[in-house]
Amino acid sequence: MAELIGDERLDHLLAEKLRIIQSPSVFSFSLDAVLLSKFVNIPIQKGRIADLCSGNGVIPLLLSTRTKGKIIGVEIQERLFNMAERSVKYNGLSEQIQMVHGDIKAFPKEIGNDKFDVVTCNPPYFPTPSQEEINRNEHFAIARHEIMCTLEDVIQSTSHLLRQGGKAAFVHRPGRLMDILSLMREYRLEPKRLQFVYPKASKEANTILIEGIKDGSPDLKILPPLVVYNEDNVYTPEVRRILYGEE
Amino acid sequence: MAELIGDERLDHLLAEKLRIIQSPSVFSFSLDAVLLSKFVNIPIQKGRIADLCSGNGVIPLLLSTRTKGKIIGVEIQERLFNMAERSVKYNGLSEQIQMVHGDIKAFPKEIGNDKFDVVTCNPPYFPTPSQEEINRNEHFAIARHEIMCTLEDVIQSTSHLLRQGGKAAFVHRPGRLMDILSLMREYRLEPKRLQFVYPKASKEANTILIEGIKDGSPDLKILPPLVVYNEDNVYTPEVRRILYGEE
Repeated sequence: MAELIGDERLDHLLAEKLRIIQSPSVFSFSLDAVLLSKFVNIPIQKGRIADLCSGNGVIPLLLSTRTKGKIIGVEIQERLFNMAERSVKYNGLSEQIQMVHGDIKAFPKEIGNDKFDVVTCNPPYFPTPSQEEINRNEHFAIARHEIMCTLEDVIQSTSHLLRQGGKAAFVHRPGRLMDILSLMREYRLEPKRLQFVYPKASKEANTILIEGIKDGSPDLKILPPLVVYNEDNVYTPEVRRILYGEE
Repeated sequence: MAELIGDERLDHLLAEKLRIIQSPSVFSFSLDAVLLSKFVNIPIQKGRIADLCSGNGVIPLLLSTRTKGKIIGVEIQERLFNMAERSVKYNGLSEQIQMVHGDIKAFPKEIGNDKFDVVTCNPPYFPTPSQEEINRNEHFAIARHEIMCTLEDVIQSTSHLLRQGGKAAFVHRPGRLMDILSLMREYRLEPKRLQFVYPKASKEANTILIEGIKDGSPDLKILPPLVVYNEDNVYTPEVRRILYGEE
Protein backbone atom coordinates (compact mmCIF):
# COMPACT_ATOMS: atom_id res chain seq x y z
CA MET A 1 0.00 0.00 0.00
CA ALA A 2 1.15 3.51 -0.75
CA GLU A 3 1.02 6.09 1.98
CA LEU A 4 -0.95 9.05 0.60
CA ILE A 5 -0.92 12.53 2.15
CA GLY A 6 -3.76 15.08 1.85
CA ASP A 7 -5.24 15.22 -1.66
CA GLU A 8 -2.61 12.90 -3.16
CA ARG A 9 -3.73 10.20 -5.59
CA LEU A 10 -2.03 7.02 -6.73
CA ASP A 11 -2.35 7.44 -10.50
CA HIS A 12 -1.62 4.92 -13.23
CA LEU A 13 1.46 5.87 -15.21
CA LEU A 14 -0.13 5.53 -18.64
CA ALA A 15 0.87 2.46 -20.60
CA GLU A 16 3.45 1.36 -18.05
CA LYS A 17 2.57 -1.00 -15.25
CA LEU A 18 3.55 1.67 -12.81
CA ARG A 19 1.76 3.91 -10.37
CA ILE A 20 2.74 7.44 -9.40
CA ILE A 21 1.72 9.63 -6.48
CA GLN A 22 0.36 12.97 -7.60
CA SER A 23 -1.61 15.83 -6.10
CA PRO A 24 -3.71 18.42 -7.90
CA SER A 25 -2.63 21.07 -5.38
CA VAL A 26 1.08 20.21 -5.35
CA PHE A 27 2.30 18.56 -8.55
CA SER A 28 1.03 16.42 -11.44
CA PHE A 29 3.22 15.35 -14.34
CA SER A 30 2.69 16.78 -17.82
CA LEU A 31 2.69 15.37 -21.34
CA ASP A 32 6.05 17.11 -21.80
CA ALA A 33 7.70 14.83 -19.22
CA VAL A 34 6.31 11.76 -20.98
CA LEU A 35 7.50 12.98 -24.38
CA LEU A 36 11.00 13.65 -23.01
CA SER A 37 11.15 10.16 -21.46
CA LYS A 38 10.44 8.60 -24.87
CA PHE A 39 12.56 11.05 -26.88
CA VAL A 40 15.90 10.63 -25.11
CA ASN A 41 18.37 8.00 -26.29
CA ILE A 42 19.42 5.85 -23.32
CA PRO A 43 21.63 2.77 -22.92
CA ILE A 44 19.48 -0.34 -22.42
CA GLN A 45 21.64 -2.74 -20.42
CA LYS A 46 23.56 -0.46 -18.08
CA GLY A 47 24.74 3.10 -17.52
CA ARG A 48 24.15 5.98 -15.15
CA ILE A 49 21.32 8.39 -15.75
CA ALA A 50 20.43 11.59 -13.89
CA ASP A 51 17.15 13.47 -14.06
CA LEU A 52 17.29 17.08 -12.83
CA CYS A 53 14.29 19.06 -11.52
CA SER A 54 12.68 15.66 -11.15
CA GLY A 55 9.40 16.74 -9.50
CA ASN A 56 7.38 13.71 -8.40
CA GLY A 57 9.85 11.42 -10.18
CA VAL A 58 7.82 10.82 -13.33
CA ILE A 59 10.85 10.77 -15.67
CA PRO A 60 12.95 8.33 -13.56
CA LEU A 61 9.89 6.05 -13.29
CA LEU A 62 9.27 6.10 -17.04
CA LEU A 63 12.97 5.68 -17.90
CA SER A 64 13.13 2.59 -15.64
CA THR A 65 10.95 0.81 -18.22
CA ARG A 66 13.53 1.49 -20.96
CA THR A 67 16.82 0.67 -19.25
CA LYS A 68 18.49 -1.49 -16.64
CA GLY A 69 20.86 1.39 -15.81
CA LYS A 70 20.85 3.22 -12.50
CA ILE A 71 18.79 6.39 -12.35
CA ILE A 72 19.19 9.30 -9.95
CA GLY A 73 16.49 11.96 -9.69
CA VAL A 74 17.26 15.33 -8.09
CA GLU A 75 14.46 17.51 -6.70
CA ILE A 76 14.81 20.65 -4.60
CA GLN A 77 11.28 20.72 -3.12
CA GLU A 78 11.09 18.39 -0.13
CA ARG A 79 7.36 17.81 -0.58
CA LEU A 80 7.86 16.60 -4.19
CA PHE A 81 11.02 14.65 -3.37
CA ASN A 82 9.00 12.87 -0.68
CA MET A 83 6.21 11.98 -3.16
CA ALA A 84 8.81 10.67 -5.60
CA GLU A 85 10.53 8.53 -2.94
CA ARG A 86 7.23 6.94 -1.96
CA SER A 87 6.35 6.24 -5.62
CA VAL A 88 9.73 4.59 -6.21
CA LYS A 89 9.22 2.44 -3.14
CA TYR A 90 5.60 1.56 -4.07
CA ASN A 91 6.76 0.32 -7.50
CA GLY A 92 9.58 -1.74 -5.98
CA LEU A 93 12.20 0.25 -7.86
CA SER A 94 14.42 1.32 -4.94
CA GLU A 95 17.32 -0.74 -6.33
CA GLN A 96 17.26 1.10 -9.66
CA ILE A 97 16.07 4.61 -8.83
CA GLN A 98 17.55 6.85 -6.17
CA MET A 99 15.86 10.16 -5.39
CA VAL A 100 18.04 12.95 -4.01
CA HIS A 101 16.66 15.96 -2.16
CA GLY A 102 18.93 18.78 -3.23
CA ASP A 103 19.87 21.68 -5.44
CA ILE A 104 20.98 20.78 -8.98
CA LYS A 105 23.56 23.58 -8.82
CA ALA A 106 25.32 21.85 -5.92
CA PHE A 107 24.76 18.29 -7.17
CA PRO A 108 27.82 17.96 -9.49
CA LYS A 109 30.16 18.91 -6.65
CA GLU A 110 28.47 16.43 -4.32
CA ILE A 111 28.49 13.47 -6.69
CA GLY A 112 31.48 14.33 -8.88
CA ASN A 113 31.94 15.49 -12.48
CA ASP A 114 31.83 13.37 -15.67
CA LYS A 115 29.90 10.57 -13.96
CA PHE A 116 26.75 10.19 -16.09
CA ASP A 117 25.92 8.72 -19.49
CA VAL A 118 22.63 10.56 -19.80
CA VAL A 119 21.11 13.61 -18.12
CA THR A 120 17.49 14.61 -18.64
CA CYS A 121 15.63 17.70 -17.46
CA ASN A 122 12.12 19.12 -17.81
CA PRO A 123 13.00 22.47 -16.24
CA PRO A 124 10.82 25.37 -15.07
CA TYR A 125 9.72 27.18 -18.24
CA PHE A 126 8.84 30.65 -17.11
CA PRO A 127 10.74 33.69 -15.79
CA THR A 128 10.47 34.70 -12.16
CA PRO A 129 6.84 35.24 -11.04
CA SER A 130 5.44 37.97 -8.80
CA GLN A 131 5.47 37.55 -5.02
CA GLU A 132 1.68 37.17 -5.20
CA GLU A 133 1.98 34.17 -7.51
CA ILE A 134 4.59 32.61 -5.22
CA ASN A 135 2.36 33.13 -2.19
CA ARG A 136 -0.66 31.59 -3.94
CA ASN A 137 1.04 28.23 -4.52
CA GLU A 138 4.72 27.92 -3.79
CA HIS A 139 4.95 24.35 -5.11
CA PHE A 140 3.60 25.28 -8.53
CA ALA A 141 5.59 28.51 -8.58
CA ILE A 142 8.91 26.72 -8.00
CA ALA A 143 8.13 23.92 -10.46
CA ARG A 144 7.07 26.32 -13.22
CA HIS A 145 9.23 29.41 -12.77
CA GLU A 146 12.95 30.04 -12.75
CA ILE A 147 13.01 30.74 -9.01
CA MET A 148 15.38 28.06 -7.79
CA CYS A 149 17.20 27.41 -11.05
CA THR A 150 17.57 29.10 -14.41
CA LEU A 151 17.98 27.47 -17.81
CA GLU A 152 21.68 28.26 -17.62
CA ASP A 153 21.93 26.50 -14.21
CA VAL A 154 20.33 23.40 -15.74
CA ILE A 155 22.64 23.33 -18.75
CA GLN A 156 25.76 24.08 -16.73
CA SER A 157 25.04 21.35 -14.14
CA THR A 158 24.19 18.89 -16.92
CA SER A 159 27.50 19.56 -18.63
CA HIS A 160 29.41 18.99 -15.38
CA LEU A 161 27.59 15.72 -14.71
CA LEU A 162 28.03 14.18 -18.17
CA ARG A 163 31.03 12.21 -19.31
CA GLN A 164 32.47 13.06 -22.73
CA GLY A 165 30.09 11.64 -25.33
CA GLY A 166 27.25 11.53 -22.80
CA LYS A 167 23.80 12.72 -23.82
CA ALA A 168 21.77 15.65 -22.50
CA ALA A 169 18.04 15.85 -23.28
CA PHE A 170 15.71 18.72 -22.45
CA VAL A 171 12.14 19.78 -23.12
CA HIS A 172 11.22 23.47 -23.28
CA ARG A 173 9.18 26.14 -25.02
CA PRO A 174 10.04 27.36 -28.57
CA GLY A 175 10.51 30.92 -27.34
CA ARG A 176 13.67 29.72 -25.58
CA LEU A 177 15.08 27.83 -28.57
CA MET A 178 17.79 30.38 -29.30
CA ASP A 179 18.87 30.50 -25.65
CA ILE A 180 18.96 26.70 -25.38
CA LEU A 181 20.99 26.27 -28.55
CA SER A 182 23.51 28.93 -27.60
CA LEU A 183 23.80 27.81 -23.96
CA MET A 184 24.19 24.17 -24.97
CA ARG A 185 27.01 25.07 -27.32
CA GLU A 186 28.58 27.35 -24.70
CA TYR A 187 28.60 24.48 -22.17
CA ARG A 188 29.93 21.89 -24.67
CA LEU A 189 26.61 20.08 -25.19
CA GLU A 190 26.51 20.11 -29.00
CA PRO A 191 22.87 19.94 -30.20
CA LYS A 192 22.28 16.84 -32.35
CA ARG A 193 18.54 16.01 -32.40
CA LEU A 194 15.76 18.57 -32.30
CA GLN A 195 12.06 17.77 -32.51
CA PHE A 196 9.18 20.22 -32.62
CA VAL A 197 5.87 19.32 -31.03
CA TYR A 198 2.82 20.89 -32.69
CA PRO A 199 -0.53 20.80 -30.84
CA LYS A 200 -2.17 20.35 -34.25
CA ALA A 201 -0.75 20.07 -37.78
CA SER A 202 -2.11 23.56 -38.50
CA LYS A 203 -0.73 25.22 -35.34
CA GLU A 204 2.59 26.73 -34.28
CA ALA A 205 4.88 24.46 -32.25
CA ASN A 206 4.44 24.85 -28.49
CA THR A 207 7.15 22.48 -27.27
CA ILE A 208 10.68 21.51 -28.28
CA LEU A 209 12.62 18.36 -27.48
CA ILE A 210 16.38 18.60 -27.86
CA GLU A 211 19.29 16.24 -27.32
CA GLY A 212 22.97 17.12 -27.36
CA ILE A 213 26.22 15.22 -26.95
CA LYS A 214 28.99 16.47 -24.69
CA ASP A 215 31.88 17.50 -26.95
CA GLY A 216 30.01 16.12 -29.97
CA SER A 217 30.66 17.37 -33.51
CA PRO A 218 28.22 19.89 -35.04
CA ASP A 219 25.49 18.07 -37.00
CA LEU A 220 21.95 19.02 -36.02
CA LYS A 221 19.03 16.91 -37.28
CA ILE A 222 15.40 18.08 -37.19
CA LEU A 223 13.31 14.99 -36.45
CA PRO A 224 9.88 14.42 -38.05
CA PRO A 225 7.16 16.69 -36.64
CA LEU A 226 5.29 15.38 -33.61
CA VAL A 227 1.63 16.39 -33.85
CA VAL A 228 -0.40 15.87 -30.66
CA TYR A 229 -4.04 16.18 -31.75
CA ASN A 230 -5.72 15.67 -35.10
CA GLU A 231 -8.20 18.29 -36.32
CA ASP A 232 -11.02 16.58 -34.34
CA ASN A 233 -9.10 17.04 -31.05
CA VAL A 234 -8.28 13.34 -30.75
CA TYR A 235 -4.72 12.21 -29.98
CA THR A 236 -2.84 11.25 -33.14
CA PRO A 237 -1.77 7.59 -33.51
CA GLU A 238 1.83 8.56 -32.77
CA VAL A 239 0.95 10.21 -29.45
CA ARG A 240 -1.37 7.34 -28.51
CA ARG A 241 1.60 5.02 -29.04
CA ILE A 242 3.77 7.16 -26.78
CA LEU A 243 1.09 7.50 -24.10
CA TYR A 244 -0.62 4.13 -24.15
CA GLY A 245 1.66 1.89 -26.17
CA GLU A 246 -1.14 1.38 -28.73
CA GLU A 247 -0.25 0.41 -32.25
CA MET B 1 9.28 36.54 -78.23
CA ALA B 2 12.02 35.61 -75.80
CA GLU B 3 15.53 35.26 -77.09
CA LEU B 4 16.74 31.80 -76.02
CA ILE B 5 20.39 30.72 -75.98
CA GLY B 6 21.63 27.12 -76.31
CA ASP B 7 19.51 24.66 -74.32
CA GLU B 8 17.45 27.38 -72.60
CA ARG B 9 13.70 26.88 -72.27
CA LEU B 10 10.91 29.35 -71.60
CA ASP B 11 9.15 27.60 -68.70
CA HIS B 12 5.82 28.45 -67.10
CA LEU B 13 6.27 29.84 -63.62
CA LEU B 14 3.80 27.54 -61.90
CA ALA B 15 0.51 29.13 -60.94
CA GLU B 16 1.58 32.60 -61.96
CA LYS B 17 0.95 33.95 -65.43
CA LEU B 18 4.66 34.35 -65.89
CA ARG B 19 7.35 32.67 -67.92
CA ILE B 20 10.96 32.17 -66.92
CA ILE B 21 14.06 31.30 -68.92
CA GLN B 22 15.86 28.24 -67.59
CA SER B 23 18.50 25.83 -68.77
CA PRO B 24 19.16 22.30 -67.56
CA SER B 25 22.90 22.81 -67.99
CA VAL B 26 23.12 26.25 -66.36
CA PHE B 27 20.34 26.92 -63.84
CA SER B 28 16.77 25.88 -63.01
CA PHE B 29 14.86 27.18 -60.03
CA SER B 30 14.06 24.92 -57.09
CA LEU B 31 11.04 24.36 -54.84
CA ASP B 32 13.01 26.17 -52.12
CA ALA B 33 12.92 29.44 -54.05
CA VAL B 34 9.15 29.12 -54.52
CA LEU B 35 8.62 28.38 -50.82
CA LEU B 36 10.72 31.39 -49.80
CA SER B 37 8.75 33.65 -52.17
CA LYS B 38 5.49 32.62 -50.44
CA PHE B 39 6.92 32.56 -46.91
CA VAL B 40 8.32 36.07 -46.68
CA ASN B 41 6.13 38.90 -45.40
CA ILE B 42 6.20 41.76 -47.92
CA PRO B 43 4.45 45.12 -48.15
CA ILE B 44 1.68 44.99 -50.77
CA GLN B 45 1.30 48.55 -52.03
CA LYS B 46 4.86 49.87 -52.01
CA GLY B 47 8.32 49.38 -50.58
CA ARG B 48 11.79 48.39 -51.73
CA ILE B 49 12.77 44.75 -51.89
CA ALA B 50 16.15 43.19 -52.66
CA ASP B 51 16.81 39.58 -53.59
CA LEU B 52 20.41 38.43 -53.20
CA CYS B 53 22.00 35.50 -55.07
CA SER B 54 19.07 35.88 -57.41
CA GLY B 55 20.03 33.26 -60.01
CA ASN B 56 17.68 33.39 -63.02
CA GLY B 57 15.47 35.86 -61.14
CA VAL B 58 12.81 33.40 -59.98
CA ILE B 59 12.25 35.10 -56.61
CA PRO B 60 11.89 38.66 -58.00
CA LEU B 61 9.47 37.32 -60.63
CA LEU B 62 7.35 35.50 -58.01
CA LEU B 63 7.43 38.43 -55.57
CA SER B 64 6.17 40.75 -58.33
CA THR B 65 2.82 38.92 -58.10
CA ARG B 66 2.53 39.78 -54.38
CA THR B 67 3.56 43.45 -54.26
CA LYS B 68 3.58 46.70 -56.18
CA GLY B 69 6.91 47.58 -54.55
CA LYS B 70 10.17 47.87 -56.48
CA ILE B 71 12.36 44.77 -56.56
CA ILE B 72 16.08 44.57 -57.19
CA GLY B 73 17.75 41.22 -57.84
CA VAL B 74 21.53 40.84 -57.50
CA GLU B 75 23.37 38.02 -59.27
CA ILE B 76 27.13 37.56 -59.62
CA GLN B 77 27.10 35.12 -62.56
CA GLU B 78 26.76 37.06 -65.80
CA ARG B 79 25.17 34.12 -67.61
CA LEU B 80 22.39 33.86 -64.99
CA PHE B 81 22.01 37.63 -64.67
CA ASN B 82 21.51 37.72 -68.41
CA MET B 83 18.80 35.01 -68.28
CA ALA B 84 17.06 36.91 -65.49
CA GLU B 85 17.14 40.19 -67.40
CA ARG B 86 15.59 38.58 -70.46
CA SER B 87 12.85 36.95 -68.35
CA VAL B 88 12.00 40.27 -66.70
CA LYS B 89 11.77 41.92 -70.11
CA TYR B 90 9.72 39.06 -71.59
CA ASN B 91 7.15 39.39 -68.78
CA GLY B 92 6.97 43.18 -69.22
CA LEU B 93 8.19 43.76 -65.67
CA SER B 94 11.14 46.06 -66.38
CA GLU B 95 9.39 48.91 -64.53
CA GLN B 96 9.11 46.88 -61.31
CA ILE B 97 12.13 44.58 -61.35
CA GLN B 98 15.72 45.66 -61.85
CA MET B 99 18.42 43.02 -62.17
CA VAL B 100 21.94 43.96 -61.10
CA HIS B 101 25.06 42.07 -62.17
CA GLY B 102 27.31 42.26 -59.16
CA ASP B 103 28.70 40.92 -55.92
CA ILE B 104 26.36 41.03 -52.91
CA LYS B 105 29.33 41.91 -50.69
CA ALA B 106 29.88 45.16 -52.63
CA PHE B 107 26.19 45.92 -53.20
CA PRO B 108 25.41 47.76 -49.91
CA LYS B 109 28.25 50.22 -50.57
CA GLU B 110 27.08 50.77 -54.15
CA ILE B 111 23.41 51.35 -53.36
CA GLY B 112 23.67 52.66 -49.76
CA ASN B 113 22.79 51.24 -46.34
CA ASP B 114 19.35 51.05 -44.69
CA LYS B 115 17.52 51.36 -48.01
CA PHE B 116 15.33 48.24 -48.14
CA ASP B 117 12.13 47.08 -46.45
CA VAL B 118 12.69 43.43 -47.29
CA VAL B 119 15.70 41.36 -48.32
CA THR B 120 15.36 37.74 -49.45
CA CYS B 121 18.06 35.21 -50.25
CA ASN B 122 18.20 31.57 -51.33
CA PRO B 123 21.98 31.27 -50.91
CA PRO B 124 24.43 28.55 -51.92
CA TYR B 125 23.94 25.73 -49.40
CA PHE B 126 27.17 23.78 -49.49
CA PRO B 127 30.79 24.38 -48.45
CA THR B 128 33.48 24.95 -51.05
CA PRO B 129 33.63 22.11 -53.63
CA SER B 130 36.70 20.47 -55.13
CA GLN B 131 38.37 21.98 -58.20
CA GLU B 132 37.06 18.99 -60.16
CA GLU B 133 33.46 19.84 -59.27
CA ILE B 134 34.06 23.47 -60.22
CA ASN B 135 35.57 22.43 -63.56
CA ARG B 136 32.68 20.09 -64.32
CA ASN B 137 30.04 22.82 -64.19
CA GLU B 138 31.05 26.22 -62.93
CA HIS B 139 27.49 27.61 -63.05
CA PHE B 140 26.11 24.91 -60.77
CA ALA B 141 29.18 25.02 -58.53
CA ILE B 142 28.82 28.75 -57.89
CA ALA B 143 25.05 28.58 -57.38
CA ARG B 144 25.28 25.66 -54.95
CA HIS B 145 28.55 26.15 -53.08
CA GLU B 146 29.95 28.92 -50.94
CA ILE B 147 32.53 29.90 -53.55
CA MET B 148 31.56 33.51 -54.22
CA CYS B 149 29.73 34.18 -50.95
CA THR B 150 29.40 32.56 -47.55
CA LEU B 151 26.38 32.48 -45.27
CA GLU B 152 28.00 35.23 -43.22
CA ASP B 153 28.44 37.39 -46.33
CA VAL B 154 24.72 36.98 -47.09
CA ILE B 155 23.61 37.88 -43.57
CA GLN B 156 26.04 40.79 -43.24
CA SER B 157 25.02 42.33 -46.58
CA THR B 158 21.34 41.81 -45.75
CA SER B 159 21.76 43.64 -42.45
CA HIS B 160 23.47 46.58 -44.16
CA LEU B 161 20.76 46.83 -46.81
CA LEU B 162 17.75 46.72 -44.45
CA ARG B 163 16.26 49.69 -42.69
CA GLN B 164 15.46 49.31 -38.98
CA GLY B 165 12.37 47.13 -38.70
CA GLY B 166 12.94 45.74 -42.19
CA LYS B 167 12.57 42.02 -42.80
CA ALA B 168 15.16 39.44 -43.85
CA ALA B 169 14.03 36.03 -45.12
CA PHE B 170 16.26 33.09 -45.98
CA VAL B 171 15.92 29.45 -46.97
CA HIS B 172 18.61 26.94 -46.04
CA ARG B 173 19.39 23.42 -44.79
CA PRO B 174 18.69 22.36 -41.17
CA GLY B 175 22.38 21.53 -40.63
CA ARG B 176 23.06 25.28 -40.74
CA LEU B 177 20.27 26.27 -38.33
CA MET B 178 22.61 27.05 -35.45
CA ASP B 179 24.89 29.13 -37.69
CA ILE B 180 21.96 31.05 -39.18
CA LEU B 181 20.42 31.83 -35.80
CA SER B 182 23.67 32.99 -34.27
CA LEU B 183 24.77 34.98 -37.34
CA MET B 184 21.36 36.64 -37.64
CA ARG B 185 21.51 37.73 -34.02
CA GLU B 186 25.13 38.86 -34.44
CA TYR B 187 24.15 41.05 -37.40
CA ARG B 188 21.02 42.48 -35.68
CA LEU B 189 18.49 40.43 -37.66
CA GLU B 190 16.46 39.04 -34.76
CA PRO B 191 14.83 35.72 -35.78
CA LYS B 192 11.02 35.93 -35.53
CA ARG B 193 9.44 33.24 -37.75
CA LEU B 194 10.93 29.82 -38.37
CA GLN B 195 9.29 27.09 -40.44
CA PHE B 196 10.54 23.57 -41.01
CA VAL B 197 9.86 21.82 -44.29
CA TYR B 198 9.55 18.04 -44.07
CA PRO B 199 9.67 15.99 -47.30
CA LYS B 200 7.08 13.69 -45.68
CA ALA B 201 5.33 13.75 -42.29
CA SER B 202 7.47 10.78 -41.23
CA LYS B 203 10.82 12.24 -42.36
CA GLU B 204 13.39 14.60 -40.92
CA ALA B 205 13.15 18.23 -42.06
CA ASN B 206 15.36 18.99 -45.07
CA THR B 207 14.72 22.72 -45.42
CA ILE B 208 14.24 25.69 -43.12
CA LEU B 209 12.56 29.01 -43.83
CA ILE B 210 13.45 31.84 -41.49
CA GLU B 211 12.49 35.49 -41.21
CA GLY B 212 14.06 38.07 -38.94
CA ILE B 213 13.51 41.75 -38.22
CA LYS B 214 16.37 44.22 -38.09
CA ASP B 215 16.70 45.32 -34.45
CA GLY B 216 13.51 43.41 -33.55
CA SER B 217 12.81 42.14 -30.04
CA PRO B 218 13.49 38.46 -29.24
CA ASP B 219 10.34 36.38 -29.81
CA LEU B 220 10.78 33.38 -32.08
CA LYS B 221 7.72 31.53 -33.39
CA ILE B 222 7.86 28.06 -34.94
CA LEU B 223 5.24 28.04 -37.69
CA PRO B 224 3.11 24.94 -38.45
CA PRO B 225 5.06 22.17 -40.18
CA LEU B 226 5.16 22.30 -43.98
CA VAL B 227 4.98 18.77 -45.38
CA VAL B 228 5.77 18.46 -49.10
CA TYR B 229 4.59 14.96 -50.06
CA ASN B 230 2.01 12.66 -48.54
CA GLU B 231 2.90 9.00 -47.97
CA ASP B 232 1.88 8.18 -51.57
CA ASN B 233 4.45 10.65 -52.95
CA VAL B 234 1.80 13.14 -54.06
CA TYR B 235 2.13 16.84 -53.20
CA THR B 236 0.13 17.74 -50.08
CA PRO B 237 -2.81 20.16 -50.53
CA GLU B 238 -0.77 22.92 -48.87
CA VAL B 239 2.12 22.58 -51.32
CA ARG B 240 -0.27 22.32 -54.27
CA ARG B 241 -1.73 25.63 -53.09
CA ILE B 242 1.72 27.19 -52.96
CA LEU B 243 2.80 25.78 -56.33
CA TYR B 244 -0.38 25.92 -58.40
CA GLY B 245 -2.75 28.10 -56.40
CA GLU B 246 -5.18 25.14 -56.13
CA GLU B 247 -7.64 25.07 -53.24
